Amino acid sequence: MIRPRNDTLLRALLRQPTPYTPIWLMRQAGRYLPEYNEARARAGSFLALCRNPDLAAEVTLQPLARFALDAAIVFSDILVIPDAMGLGLYFTEGEGPRFERPLRDEWEVRNLVAPDPEEHLRYVLDTVAQVRRALGNEVPLIGFSGSPFTLACYMVEGGSSGDFHEVKRMLYQRPELLHRILETNAGAVSAYLNAQIEHGAQAVMIFDTWGGTLAHEAYREFSLRYIEHVLSGLKRAHGGERVPNIVFTRGGGQWLDEIAASGCDAVGLDWTVDLGAARRQVGEHVALQGNLDPAVLLTSPAVIREEARKILAAYGYGSGHVFNLGHGVSPAAPPEHVAALVEAAHGLSKEYHRKAAP
Amino acid sequence: MIRPRNDTLLRALLRQPTPYTPIWLMRQAGRYLPEYNEARARAGSFLALCRNPDLAAEVTLQPLARFALDAAIVFSDILVIPDAMGLGLYFTEGEGPRFERPLRDEWEVRNLVAPDPEEHLRYVLDTVAQVRRALGNEVPLIGFSGSPFTLACYMVEGGSSGDFHEVKRMLYQRPELLHRILETNAGAVSAYLNAQIEHGAQAVMIFDTWGGTLAHEAYREFSLRYIEHVLSGLKRAHGGERVPNIVFTRGGGQWLDEIAASGCDAVGLDWTVDLGAARRQVGEHVALQGNLDPAVLLTSPAVIREEARKILAAYGYGSGHVFNLGHGVSPAAPPEHVAALVEAAHGLSKEYHRKAAP
Repeated sequence: MIRPRNDTLLRALLRQPTPYTPIWLMRQAGRYLPEYNEARARAGSFLALCRNPDLAAEVTLQPLARFALDAAIVFSDILVIPDAMGLGLYFTEGEGPRFERPLRDEWEVRNLVAPDPEEHLRYVLDTVAQVRRALGNEVPLIGFSGSPFTLACYMVEGGSSGDFHEVKRMLYQRPELLHRILETNAGAVSAYLNAQIEHGAQAVMIFDTWGGTLAHEAYREFSLRYIEHVLSGLKRAHGGERVPNIVFTRGGGQWLDEIAASGCDAVGLDWTVDLGAARRQVGEHVALQGNLDPAVLLTSPAVIREEARKILAAYGYGSGHVFNLGHGVSPAAPPEHVAALVEAAHGLSKEYHRKAAP
Repeated sequence: MIRPRNDTLLRALLRQPTPYTPIWLMRQAGRYLPEYNEARARAGSFLALCRNPDLAAEVTLQPLARFALDAAIVFSDILVIPDAMGLGLYFTEGEGPRFERPLRDEWEVRNLVAPDPEEHLRYVLDTVAQVRRALGNEVPLIGFSGSPFTLACYMVEGGSSGDFHEVKRMLYQRPELLHRILETNAGAVSAYLNAQIEHGAQAVMIFDTWGGTLAHEAYREFSLRYIEHVLSGLKRAHGGERVPNIVFTRGGGQWLDEIAASGCDAVGLDWTVDLGAARRQVGEHVALQGNLDPAVLLTSPAVIREEARKILAAYGYGSGHVFNLGHGVSPAAPPEHVAALVEAAHGLSKEYHRKAAP
């Protein structure tokens, strides 16, 4: 593995000095880009797009052709793991992802097996390899997965849920069944992320989208604990280079200390978190990624620049910050606003890297 | 005003000794009760039910006929204030509340006027008075309102929203317009809560359902600041009795210090908050209300009892805790499970009030 020419992301995640604050955006390849919608139409559906390495690699690279982003993130979906487990992923218009065979009965849980990524998630690994070749080692490529608990939410609910009644019923009434699912998921996520690393991912991120819907104790027991399992099974280096990892629990701002102690290199923050306070709290141990309110992208270049300035000032001098939104780019965000954000993050951050705190 | 025979709620909110931990439940009068659905069918619609003091008083009292709850909360909706401002509240099946005339143009914001509750919200005040008469001073009656920001979300969005793009666009691009709305709302909420107190409410609660969707700085500036305005305009006593207040920001667990310093008597906690840690953090200044995961009501009496025990143990010895869910009762909750919860909270809490911490 050769280090990318622009290694600011990797350095920032390891809290090493950088000339400016690197930036990438969750869901940077997505519906706000006309060329993405065009590729998706060509593929026929979102899932077909995910499963076609040529097209998935194409959309992965689209935002990098427009904006001076400091990383690519492989275009895929967090639910490809349960799909590879045989649950039958499909998408319905307006309702999001669904599973044909959600986990309801005990025998279904007992029969659950982690998929072999080389066999069952080949299309993602091919996309990773293809993106790496196309990137020409310009910027690093991020691989990702859903967290064991977040995957379990969809696997038990059978799709998106407002209240997570099914998975919570299992959590409170049949915790041993949920633990069984989470153990399988943790093994599957580790193997999947390691395979992405072997095929070219230079950093990895775990998306814990729904951990923040848990009571604090349940979060530790059913989400964070299995993120720790994943991390302990993860390759920390490949080809002589460190492969940093990022853990993002949406709504996890109250639990920063525990998340930072999970063994991760960086913690992703949603926009409700005070970035300056978070750095004072855990910034000696981990890098921080985030955390602009995604709604800011709907305003104007001047407002975007001002809000980006506040985020950079909140983190302050020195390395260890990766600029990002606190959640994904909205389909309603104008691409020129994304351009303004990337430019602002780069331009305004230089002063924070020139010297130590005054 | 005469003190109710069961004054445990009022005493707990003021951190005075009680023989056990009082309990009431957000949305305790609601769709999980067959007699509620029957009354709603008689009224013809949810709004007609809210606007009919006879029926609204009837459903307010329904849960108290079934369960040994320590308080009633007036049956109403948080959106009656913007409705009284002329925005035209209506409900659509499956999509929740909508406004016919949301605030979009500057002139609409400039023309916004706080309603006179005695004139425009008479039906709520009549309900309050009627419930008080029917309660025969057995338990206290809680009045409530949405927070200024939460009301503004609906007023600007025109209804429920997943992403709050319209109100956030205003917040970031035209903050002075949003401040204008929030000032009007704060005056309206104070006047409305004071009118409820004058007509018989013995405690009041401010529901800040959407403050937790704001970035931390924006929460202080656009939500908490106006909750403070409301509190500073609130009657603190009536008829010689203290009228305690409760502030509940859903998703506000990160901001407990600031919320506790707002001037409120009690802070409502959602189920993501560690109640024991919250007490150590702010329990010297305010009472705490909450915070069982509402999904626990879907399990079984045995699980409900065990989870209630954990909540009581987390708060520990002494007064200052009001047992509640971390959010409203789900329509899917079986009434006999609610009975099990009320019994568990009462029975298991006595030991924590018998003596000081061992």
